[in-house]
Amino acid sequence: MTPANSRVTVVGSGNWGSVAAKLIASNTLKLDSFHDEVRMWVFEETLPSGEKLSQVINRTNENVKYMPGIKLGKNVVADPDLENAVRDASMLVFVTPHQFMEGICKRLVGKIRRDAISLIKGMEVKREGPCMISSLISEQLGISCCVLMGANIANEIAVEKFSEATVGYRKDKETAEKWVQLFNTSYFMVSAVQDVEGVELCGTLKNVVAIAAGFVDGLEMGNNTKAAIMRIGLREMKTFSKLLFPSVKDSTFFESCGVADLITTCCNNAKLLHLLLLTSGGRNRRCAEAFARNGGKRSFDELEAEMLQGQKLQGVSTAKEVYEVLRHRGWLELFPLFSTVHEICIAVPPTAIVEYSEHTPKFSLVGGSAQFF
Amino acid sequence: MTPANSRVTVVGSGNWGSVAAKLIASNTLKLDSFHDEVRMWVFEETLPSGEKLSQVINRTNENVKYMPGIKLGKNVVADPDLENAVRDASMLVFVTPHQFMEGICKRLVGKIRRDAISLIKGMEVKREGPCMISSLISEQLGISCCVLMGANIANEIAVEKFSEATVGYRKDKETAEKWVQLFNTSYFMVSAVQDVEGVELCGTLKNVVAIAAGFVDGLEMGNNTKAAIMRIGLREMKTFSKLLFPSVKDSTFFESCGVADLITTCCNNAKLLHLLLLTSGGRNRRCAEAFARNGGKRSFDELEAEMLQGQKLQGVSTAKEVYEVLRHRGWLELFPLFSTVHEICIAVPPTAIVEYSEHTPKFSLVGGSAQFF
Repeated sequence: MTPANSRVTVVGSGNWGSVAAKLIASNTLKLDSFHDEVRMWVFEETLPSGEKLSQVINRTNENVKYMPGIKLGKNVVADPDLENAVRDASMLVFVTPHQFMEGICKRLVGKIRRDAISLIKGMEVKREGPCMISSLISEQLGISCCVLMGANIANEIAVEKFSEATVGYRKDKETAEKWVQLFNTSYFMVSAVQDVEGVELCGTLKNVVAIAAGFVDGLEMGNNTKAAIMRIGLREMKTFSKLLFPSVKDSTFFESCGVADLITTCCNNAKLLHLLLLTSGGRNRRCAEAFARNGGKRSFDELEAEMLQGQKLQGVSTAKEVYEVLRHRGWLELFPLFSTVHEICIAVPPTAIVEYSEHTPKFSLVGGSAQFF
Repeated sequence: MTPANSRVTVVGSGNWGSVAAKLIASNTLKLDSFHDEVRMWVFEETLPSGEKLSQVINRTNENVKYMPGIKLGKNVVADPDLENAVRDASMLVFVTPHQFMEGICKRLVGKIRRDAISLIKGMEVKREGPCMISSLISEQLGISCCVLMGANIANEIAVEKFSEATVGYRKDKETAEKWVQLFNTSYFMVSAVQDVEGVELCGTLKNVVAIAAGFVDGLEMGNNTKAAIMRIGLREMKTFSKLLFPSVKDSTFFESCGVADLITTCCNNAKLLHLLLLTSGGRNRRCAEAFARNGGKRSFDELEAEMLQGQKLQGVSTAKEVYEVLRHRGWLELFPLFSTVHEICIAVPPTAIVEYSEHTPKFSLVGGSAQFF
């Protein structure tokens, strides 16, 4: 190992961050171009035992709080000091809740040397357009930033069930290949596409479709309807992304970040419900199902408080943000599914999701307009 | 009504045929360009009561055997005489089991005047390429033939749950629009694409992916794996179709016939399992799940005998047929999923579906080659 080898730091240590560290640590041991050690920044907590989380991770090689029972690899070093954790890193993996990223970037200005990748799903969509986490990182830290998205329920990857993921990059294919090398394992198959916005938008917009899918489940509309709603949702994801970023490619929506992540997020595999409940996608669909079962009479605020101990659903807030963009740009008619999801969240009955007679002209419009993109 | 109005005959009266007649009959009443009456050819059966099926349909307006409880419309006339049923028709809807089509076409040579559409999923894939039902009809009867495919579980459409479908046409957009008019209702949304082969191949190839999805369910591999397998399956459907018919469009796989039908066919919505069991898609996935749970130790023949009263699974035979094409053309390496499904059906253990270490180069190859299509 020469000092020129890439050093990797994972910023974040929730369940996905821990699994990312495990994947990466298995590769840095094997690949000569990476330094063996993988640093993982831990937002320090004191455990009920009185010990610090970072110390327990370093002693046991397990994130006992967020990914218990899974050995991360002895070359993963937990570090509660953010500045120290990133100091020597030339490759940074961001995998924190998205609301922390602005603060983290501020603390890291001028301290980062090379490349970054964001695994953070669910950036905000502001009226003037989406506020991409990868752009935030690029702009604030003056470095390039790729993204990695896909059908990636962390608990399943932790136990090495086969899955896929997509790396999105802007221009630098060589760096993208390096990220692929770093994440790819026999059970985690990564491929790279030159479409950072398309990949990143998939990770956010699918949560809106998951809300729609949950409504369909709650109304017991059946398999055809669920599939139709998912399909229309995928099309609106594509159309919305391409309207905002003309460089977005159709093919991206056939990647793991597109159709596959949509499937894991919208489908309720009963046998694996206990796993799904731990995931954001599962949450969106599940709360929307409960919302529809109650005929919209109990608000999302109330259901979130009851079902998620007060955590907020990303899908509901993303639907609102997307609605603002659509209204601002005069595109509401082009996106009947996206706009109806928000309208149901705030006022109209859940059955509106398939009020076809009303929606037919709107849906047709989308069909027509989709030809142009 | 002038005699120049189009007269429609539905050839077939199973559950999907009955629902097709119901959809069409509701439209011929409303639209001036169609004769009100819809003929439905019934393969005559004597019911336990001693009555003929066609007579009971005409007396009750219900197909008491294949779609009990659903009123087809008073303008649907069941007719057990094939030649008589088609005599005055200018628009023919074929919706029989696919193995009957060759015989039916032979009986109809020279007796058909205008346009046809096929709703038949699961044409055969011969070594020299797929034997499209729409081509069989076109060639044998000397008429144009469109297709209609989609996420269309008949029992759900019968009770007017919202769904979508795709009409595929070759050249004649005007005729395609007429078919859309004839099928489209407030709860059954039809759109047309100029890609008859793409649409028709979707309806067949998805059954191979359903077998793969069933294996994943039987092995309890989880949501990521299931989504990955469905995604890879969709990509192989696209690549295979485009290799055989360069005119096939990527966008077709985003239509109801593509991604949506794949979802209904591969997903096991527990709440609706009683409906799924009646569908071909459900059967393929379900038997494959049982096959994998038994570690491949009980053959498909045995499971079909037990679970399907001896009916054969389309997915298993299509996988074999596709395998022959792939081997014949030297494409096996390009289609790891399709080829592995067949290999599992005949010999290798079900876990091969995700034996990634072995498959990685193959999967990567597909990823690479997919760029060219």
